[in-house]
Formats: sequence, C-alpha cells, structure tokens
Amino acid sequence: MDIMKEDKIRLTLPDGSIKEFEKGSTGRDVAESISKGLARNALSVTLDDEILDMDRELPHSGAFKINTWDTDDGKYTFWHSSAHLMAEAVQELYPDVKFGIGPPIDQGFYYDMDFGDEKLTLEDLEKIENKMIELARQKNEYKRIEVPKKEAIDYFENKGDPYKLDLLEGLEDGEITFYEQGKFTDLCRGPHIPSTDKIKAVKLMNIAGAYWHGDENNKQLTRVYGITFPKKSMLDDYLHMLDEAKRRDHKKLGKQLGIYLIDSMVGQGLPIWLPNGTILRRELEAFMRAEQKRRGYQEVITPHIGNIRLYETSGHYPYYSHSQFTPMDVDDEKYMLKPMNCPHHHRIYASEMHSYRDLPVRLAEFGSVYRYEQSGELNGLSRVRGFTQDDAHIYCTQDQLKQEIKNCIDLTEYVFGIFDMPVDIRLSFRDENEDKYGGKTEYWERAQREIREVADEVGMDYTIEEGEASFYGPKIDFIIKDALGRKWQLGTVQVDYVMPERFDLTYVGSDNQKHRPVIIHRAPFGSMERFTSILIEHFAGDFPLWLSPIQVSILPLSDDYNDLADNYADQLKNEDIRVNLDKRSEQIGAKIRDAETQKIPYMLIIGEKEKANGTVAVRKHKKGNLGSFNFSDFISNLVKEVTSKKLPD
Amino acid sequence: MDIMKEDKIRLTLPDGSIKEFEKGSTGRDVAESISKGLARNALSVTLDDEILDMDRELPHSGAFKINTWDTDDGKYTFWHSSAHLMAEAVQELYPDVKFGIGPPIDQGFYYDMDFGDEKLTLEDLEKIENKMIELARQKNEYKRIEVPKKEAIDYFENKGDPYKLDLLEGLEDGEITFYEQGKFTDLCRGPHIPSTDKIKAVKLMNIAGAYWHGDENNKQLTRVYGITFPKKSMLDDYLHMLDEAKRRDHKKLGKQLGIYLIDSMVGQGLPIWLPNGTILRRELEAFMRAEQKRRGYQEVITPHIGNIRLYETSGHYPYYSHSQFTPMDVDDEKYMLKPMNCPHHHRIYASEMHSYRDLPVRLAEFGSVYRYEQSGELNGLSRVRGFTQDDAHIYCTQDQLKQEIKNCIDLTEYVFGIFDMPVDIRLSFRDENEDKYGGKTEYWERAQREIREVADEVGMDYTIEEGEASFYGPKIDFIIKDALGRKWQLGTVQVDYVMPERFDLTYVGSDNQKHRPVIIHRAPFGSMERFTSILIEHFAGDFPLWLSPIQVSILPLSDDYNDLADNYADQLKNEDIRVNLDKRSEQIGAKIRDAETQKIPYMLIIGEKEKANGTVAVRKHKKGNLGSFNFSDFISNLVKEVTSKKLPD
Repeated sequence: MDIMKEDKIRLTLPDGSIKEFEKGSTGRDVAESISKGLARNALSVTLDDEILDMDRELPHSGAFKINTWDTDDGKYTFWHSSAHLMAEAVQELYPDVKFGIGPPIDQGFYYDMDFGDEKLTLEDLEKIENKMIELARQKNEYKRIEVPKKEAIDYFENKGDPYKLDLLEGLEDGEITFYEQGKFTDLCRGPHIPSTDKIKAVKLMNIAGAYWHGDENNKQLTRVYGITFPKKSMLDDYLHMLDEAKRRDHKKLGKQLGIYLIDSMVGQGLPIWLPNGTILRRELEAFMRAEQKRRGYQEVITPHIGNIRLYETSGHYPYYSHSQFTPMDVDDEKYMLKPMNCPHHHRIYASEMHSYRDLPVRLAEFGSVYRYEQSGELNGLSRVRGFTQDDAHIYCTQDQLKQEIKNCIDLTEYVFGIFDMPVDIRLSFRDENEDKYGGKTEYWERAQREIREVADEVGMDYTIEEGEASFYGPKIDFIIKDALGRKWQLGTVQVDYVMPERFDLTYVGSDNQKHRPVIIHRAPFGSMERFTSILIEHFAGDFPLWLSPIQVSILPLSDDYNDLADNYADQLKNEDIRVNLDKRSEQIGAKIRDAETQKIPYMLIIGEKEKANGTVAVRKHKKGNLGSFNFSDFISNLVKEVTSKKLPD
Repeated sequence: MDIMKEDKIRLTLPDGSIKEFEKGSTGRDVAESISKGLARNALSVTLDDEILDMDRELPHSGAFKINTWDTDDGKYTFWHSSAHLMAEAVQELYPDVKFGIGPPIDQGFYYDMDFGDEKLTLEDLEKIENKMIELARQKNEYKRIEVPKKEAIDYFENKGDPYKLDLLEGLEDGEITFYEQGKFTDLCRGPHIPSTDKIKAVKLMNIAGAYWHGDENNKQLTRVYGITFPKKSMLDDYLHMLDEAKRRDHKKLGKQLGIYLIDSMVGQGLPIWLPNGTILRRELEAFMRAEQKRRGYQEVITPHIGNIRLYETSGHYPYYSHSQFTPMDVDDEKYMLKPMNCPHHHRIYASEMHSYRDLPVRLAEFGSVYRYEQSGELNGLSRVRGFTQDDAHIYCTQDQLKQEIKNCIDLTEYVFGIFDMPVDIRLSFRDENEDKYGGKTEYWERAQREIREVADEVGMDYTIEEGEASFYGPKIDFIIKDALGRKWQLGTVQVDYVMPERFDLTYVGSDNQKHRPVIIHRAPFGSMERFTSILIEHFAGDFPLWLSPIQVSILPLSDDYNDLADNYADQLKNEDIRVNLDKRSEQIGAKIRDAETQKIPYMLIIGEKEKANGTVAVRKHKKGNLGSFNFSDFISNLVKEVTSKKLPD
C-alpha cells in the first residue's frame, strides 16, 4: 500500500536513505539536489532496473542511483551514445550507408552498417575517429523523441534504411522513440548521455563481418568496434592495458614457457599439460591439498565416467545434455564422461551411516570433468572441454552451515591472498517472487541471512544479486582482480538443499532420528586450467619462485667449471630446488638471454673467482646482478623464498 | 640337415648339453640314465612343446626336460591324473554317474559329471576324498591304450556315457587314446603320471554347475573342483595359504580399512578411492614421482579422452575395439575414452623438434585409462574397467636403448625392493619363424641381445619366452612374489619400433639427418589399482608406517588429558604425521581394540603419569606395549621410520 500523496515520488538512494521529490522531477533534478559536481558528471540514472536519460521525467518511486563513468550503467550509457556518434560520423563521410544495430558492449560498442559495394579498411577508421572528435566538440544534445509508428516508418522509408524498417516491424505503436544528436537520428530505446562533448577520446578497434540478425542467409554487414572515454588519459591507459594483455597472453606465454599444448589430433579444447605446466599445476595442487588437509578435508579420487543414473538422479541429464558429451553404451546401460564430481561424492557419503557427531564430512577431489563447448567458444586454457576442478563437497547440519561458509570464504581469501589478487564477493540469492527453488523457505531465509552475516563479519565488499541463486540454494561467487585490473569470476560456494533429497542423504541426529544434511559445493580456483591461464597473465609468466617450473639456472663460464656446476646442481636438487644446468659452449651473454626468455628467477654464474671463493654470482630475472653470495647462504635464502611463497618483487 | 644315424635320437637337456639315445627309448630311460632318484620323482617328460608319459617312446629328437612336482608341467600331469582318480572314486560310489570332461587347472583340477537326479552336497565330498586315497594306495598304473574309433564308440555306447560319445564325434580315427587306471577307463589324450600311489593328499574344494560345452541350452552338469599333492604337508601348507589369502582378501580389507568402494550406481569395475585409499595412493605416487624425477623423467598430464584418429593411427582402433568403451560423437568427429596413454605422449614428443642431444626424452604420467571388461571378469581392485597406470614413454636412440632398459629394470627392482617383494623377469622375444613383427630385423636382434645382456649384468633370474613379444618389439615382464609366495605379473618394459613410424616421430642426428627414435613403454606398478590390491594382501593391511593412512592414534585415558592430546596431535601434524585423536568416552581397552582393528601402527596412551613426566605410553599394532617414551624422542623416531620407508617388523 502506497501511503504517499500522488504528487510526490519517493527515491531510495544507494546509502538506504529515502528522499521525496515532486512528480515530474528528472534525474538531473535529483543529482543537482545532491551536488552540482555530481550533476555535471552524471551520465544517466537508474530507477529500479531501468536506466534513464538525465533529463527524463522519473516515472515512479523506486531504488535510485546516479550513474557516473565509474559505474557499469554509466559506461553502458556512454558507449551507447558513442555508437550513435560513430554512426553520425560515418553518415557524414559515407552518405549512402545504411544502419543496422549499434549497441554498447562489455568494452565499448559496435555498429553494424551496410556500405553497399564499398569496403571499409582499417585505414578508414582514423578518418571516422577524427570526424567523431570533431562532432563531439559540437556539444550536440542527445534528444529523445517519442514517434508514432506510422511517422517512424515514413522517416526511414524516406531515408531509405531497410534495416531500421525491418526493426520497426517488430515494434508496437506507442513504444517507439528516436534519439537525435547533431544531424543523426536513430531508432533507439535509449538511454543516452546528455551531450556529445562528454566524449573526449575515441578509438575504433576493429572491423568484422556480421550477418543481419545473425542469420547467414541475410546480407553480411560491416561491424565496426570502438571504444570511447571521457578523458584522453583513460584511452592511453586502456590501450596500454591491451598491449600488456597481449604481451601477457597465456596462449603465447603458455607456448613459450612450455606450459601446455592444444593438439588437434588429440582434440580441440583438451589441453595437454607439458612438463613445465605440470610442475606448476602440481605445486598449486600441493598448496591446496595442504590447506585442505589443515582444514579437515578428506581427499578422494573418483572415476571419470559414471552410470547415467547418477545424472538422471541429480537432474543434470537430460536437462543439460547439450553441454555434455554423448553417453557411451556399456553392457545394457549408458555411461557418461562426468560433467561434475558431485554425484560421485554424494554416493561416497551415502555409502556409510553418519551420525551428527561425524559431521561435517568434507570430501575434496581434484576432479577432472568434461563438458561440451562449441568449438568457436574454445580459447586456450581459459575455455576448454576438459578441466580439473579443485572441488569439494561439505556435508553438514543446518547449524554448522554458517561456520562452514565462513571457513570456505576464509580459505578462498587466503588462497588468492597468496597471489596478491584482491577478492570481491557477489551473493546470489533467491527471487522471493519466484517459485522455482527447492528446499524449505525457512532454510533459504536462514542460509541467506547467515551468508550475509558472514560477509559482514569477514568485512569483504559484496553485492547482492536477487534472483541469481541456483534452483538448489543460494551461492557466493568470488570475483578476483588481476594485475591489469581485470576482473575474473573464479571460485564459488554454493549451498544445496536439493541434492540431499535426490540422493537420499541422511545423518542420525542427537534425537536418534534421520535428518537431511545440507551440502556446500565449493571450488576456490574453480578450474586448474582457467586459473592457470589467469595466473600466467597476472604474473606475465614471471611466477613466484615456488611456482616457477625452473627456479635456478646454473651458467658455468666455461667447461672448466662444469664439475663445480654439477656439484652445485646436486646440492640444489637435494633441497628440492628445480635446477637447469646450461653447459652449452655458448657465450655467457647468450646463456643469460636464454634464461631470461625462459623467465628463470635466478641465474648462477660460475667462473674462476667463484670457484676460488666458494661463491656464486647471482643474477635475478629482470633485475640483473645481485652480486656475489656464499653458496650455502644462497641456498638457504632460496629455500626460505620458496617456503614463504613470496611474490616476485 | 640331420646328420644322425636313423636309429638314434638326440635330446637337448635344459643345461644345453645334448645326449644321444637309442630310438625307442622312453622318458624313464633318459631319467634313469641321469639318476635313479630323478626317475623315481619324475611325473612326465616334455619333448619340445609336448608333455609325454614317462613310459612312452620318445618319437623324435628335440628339447627335453623331466617334469617333477616342482615344475608347472609336472603339476599339470599330476592334477590331470588326479582328475581321473576322482572320477574312479565317484564311479565306485555312484555307479550311474556319466562323465563329461576333467582337465587340470591352474590350482588342481575339476571334473564335470552328470549325477542324474542325485544332488551332490559338500558333505559327500569327504566320502569321495576317502575313496580317492583308498584307490591311490592301490598303486594302480595309468595305462595308455590306442583305440580305433569304432571300438571307442562301442565301449562308451556299452557303458552308456553320452558325453564321451559326443566328444568322440569330434575326433578322428587313429588319434584316439584311452587311459585306464584301476577300474576306470577314460577317453583321454594324456599324459599321465606313472601310477596312483604318487597321490598322497586330496582335498575336494568346491561344487559348481557347468553347462555341457559351456552352452546354457545344454544340460547342467556338476563340476567338482579338487587339488592333490604328493605330500600331506603340502596340502596343509596349501590350505593354510588359502586361509591366509582369505584373511588378507583385499575386497574384505579394502572395505574394513576404508580403501575403496565399488558402487553400482557409479558403475561396476569403477573403483572410488576413499579417503584412506587416497592417502595410500598419493603416497605411492609421491614415491614414484620422486624416483622418476631423480631419474630424469618429466611429468605430463593428458586428457582422458582423445580423437579416434589417435587410435586409428596407432592401430588400436578398430582392432581392439572389443576392449574399449564405445566412441562418443563430438561435432563431426569421434572421441574415445583413452584405453592407453601412448598416443597422447607421442603427440607431445611430436610437438617439438628434437636433436639427438635432447634424447632420451622421458615422459611420465599417472594416466587414468578405461578398458571394457566383461562384468563377470571384474574383481575388486584387481580387475577393473578404469585404472591409473604409472606410465612413461622413453624416446631414445638405438645406442641409448640398452642403458635405458637397464635404468628401467633398476627402477623396478628398487621399487619392489621397498616392499620386500622379490622380482623375477621374463623376456618375451620374437619367434624367428614368424613374419608378423614390425621394425627392422637387425634392430630386433640387437635389442634382444641387449635385453639379455642387461638381464645378465643385473644378475636377475629370467626366462626367455620366444614368440611372446608384441608385434612392435621385445619386452620384459616383471613377476613379483608376495608374502604368501603367490606370483603376480606387474610391471613391464616394452621396446617399440612401430609407433615411431606410425606417428612419424623423428630426431635430428649428429649427421644432421632425421632418424627414428626407439620408444620404451614402461610401468613398474602397472596399475595403481591392481598394485594396491596386491599390496593390501601382501601386508594383510598392516602397511609400513609411510603408507599407513592413519599413523598414530592418540588415546587419552579420560577427558582430563584431552588438552594434552590436542597439543600432541598438533605437534605430530606439524611433522606431517597422520594422526587420529580418540576422545570418545570409551574405556581404554575399547579404544585400543578399535585402533587395532583399523591397523593403526602406533597408539599413544596419555594419562596422569604421562602428563606429569612429559612422556607417552607407546603401544604398537600387533606387538603391544613398547613402554614409556619421551614425546619428542618418539616423534623423531617416527619421522625416521616414515622417511626410511621401513617395513613392519
């Protein structure tokens, strides 16, 4: 029941405060009531789930935020308007062009355009960029115009724009709007930024072909990708980040450092871990295994296939069969490559009686799973058809749930802390108005409350996404930030009320009755493959010592020092240090260059002086000479650096 | 060309010496010419590949051996004759019985018999055993009689034995023999021992149903299994060994100790490694990984599926598809669960250029493979559909082959030495008269010569089996003996000249030309699953400390000592000791019993005296009290015992 007078609207601001405004107020009015500066920087506003132009009347009460460049909604608006600006520039330069669609995307925007017989080249892009800057400086307003359908059709028939006419066919009279800036008018739902002068820097990135409506029976249009920024320096930073990302590309470094191999004869999307990659992965596994052991997990190993009954019971077959490999016939039954480890673990839990005293049971597995992905989606180690999860399932009582979730968050934070990767969390809760969820409402409410309490207690930044829970329980997603500031969703902690029912899992409580445990599904790295791809790019291949496939390269100055080099190599190996011994009869400069290319953290140069003094000349990757060290001091420092999992300087 | 006179035969004895005998001589003549004792103990002789009665004329020259009880051929003859003795006893007791077939088997013999409406029970077996002993004491000769087919048919028509008549249908006139002892005559090809009195001890083991000709449309006969010995004490030892084997059965202990689980919903023949089993397996893997690292292997990890082109190239598909899981459709190609790791490793080798300076390349993987087995063949961990090989492939030059084989043998001996398992080797060579082998003859001859040289140099017992090589190269099989004296074929070292061709593997030699490497396939444990089943039975679950899933159980005498117990548990965990802390409010006797059942090597009892003195009362599994120890001394002894991989006393 709304008790407000009808001539007011009530806005709930992000800090939870509620403000009343006259009906007819715009986003700009609200922004100005807060601060002039904010109003100046505002790009759009969001009311409930809808983004609106700054100057549009706010249609109703609701949750309200002002979108500056620093927000996702702000960037979305900015890039949407930039697509229109590009269209205007193109129209000026190529008057016969026809326009398809031009949406904002994750990083920038694109527009699909029909240049007729003309072929756009990368050289043409600069011309368009310059025109965009020129038009932006005109400070043209983005004007929203509501247009009757008939009038809209007339306009585009007149203009001769068949794609817009095609789009208009799907729209109903009364919901059609145009946006106009400078000499360009587009069929568009909006919203847009106030005016073009906010766009200060432009880069058109790429040209691609795109079928109209994505249908290859239709004409192929020219798609131009671009990105824009409200400051020139931001574009410079962005381009630098792209260069860095390219330099750090895990596909390039993965090959150069011998981490992995994709071989078409073995299969697309099926990475082979090469010797150096295997060392890296085994170190990550050992690290996680030790942490899990310390935290009361028990490791298990389950087969890579399972009877299809497992997945029929869990409900993953046939509902998810599009992302699964086809079943195999065995005797008169069907088996599947396992797409997840859960049912196997549930059957382990079910193989024994459990008392409440035994809970929580925490079963962990480095479990390799296989899921079908379209071949076009496959990408190095980051998108594959076979991957290994650092998986675990925790079977606990409802009373233990909060502490177990806290433990999971603690483990995840600890793990990513080791790599200096900040972690944010996103809490995915149920939509109270939906009916699709399994498990009792009271349990959900308690679990969601407890998840939130835990998030508060551990003091992590979090957002809550209602309606994003899975059907079997609420979950926490971990979003980590890499050295380039890119965000990656990795680990997850999911509460599950449904599988205990489906697999008939029980424990005997202190009341001597059978009860259902709750299950937590969790995987901090998520996938060893994907995490490794991120790790390669995060460190640009300059791994911390404990992860470096080769930790030390010994470079004797000539054959005269080979015996000493052998001796040193043996001493290092005895301390479990991974050593390369470069006895080639190359110049020392060439040996150093090769070790640098292989990103080996330490180089030990051994010559006459070192032989005489029992020292080594130590060179550090990317840093150069560190000077002369007593060999045994060097070893003990090295062992300390490995044990401490110290990050590279 | 045979230069002998026609009235002589020439026999090559096992020591390589050659002896001439008059034509018409029998095995007994030869044995007696060597020693009266030998002739007395001889059960049969083997001429080339044929086993013959002692008193049969030797038909031609050839390789000759005398078969006593200590030989496989001797036991084969003994048990064959024992089957006839059982038949005689049954005929005496059940005059209407009809006889099917009665062969010797691996351990003893059986006879399939038709008792009409009568149903034999286990109680009847003792009666038959007694009758057999009574008949054996009659010292009846086994007489060989050549019988024309017509006469043979008449005999069994007369006797009314339809199964023998059925067998006779398949035989040709001139090749039919009867054997007769006492009052029993059988259609039989032989050979047999000289007389029944050699059979001193009899045990009939079991009764089963068996369809005539194994066809379920035929009548079901009664199969009686038995075993016999030339000495009473041998039977006692055998029955004791069976009891021990039963006590040690890995399926029973595997469950009791939480090693593994077979769950029908996951799949038959697909073992799940439970937490304790996973600890055991990870210890074995870590041990093997460390040894391999020390010996210059590089570890890799490859996917569990592969494009079918891999197996078409290797030739394993479609030729071995009966033992493979059915292919899966992926896009427009077929993929298979990998039945072996080889093609994946070959592709890793092929992904880079190799110089002779880089060889040998040794790629190791704990590779899980899947092979289809009939469900009736599956057995615990020892016969499964999915298993993990401690696999490796060594790519080397022909000149490096000998040293690499030696290294493989050395590793295998070292590994089994750790478990106190003696190793014999069997060299499987090509049959010179066959044409089915791949690779150049000169390479084969060199490889076989070198394998033999290595076997001599390392001083291992070996036998040579000609014609047992695989088509791609000669191989060495390792046969280990467990604590019960049972032999198991485990590891293998195979030389391969064929796959380098099929996968077009090369290296650039010092002549700057491309050459083919040789491949060695090797796996010391063979399969982690099967080896674990043997290990469980070898140690009867009383594993050496380093392999024990739980190494120490701390048993506080009451709650008053729980804090101290916690403190001790933490100290042990810090030293990577696997600890169980039994804080239940049970009597100490019950806690000890449970720890004994779980076969935990050490129990630490903590009470008032221990608390006051900083000591622990140590109890050892199966040994009882060891007395009082200073806790830190106990820890350092324990760590030493783990590190040394010491066997249980």
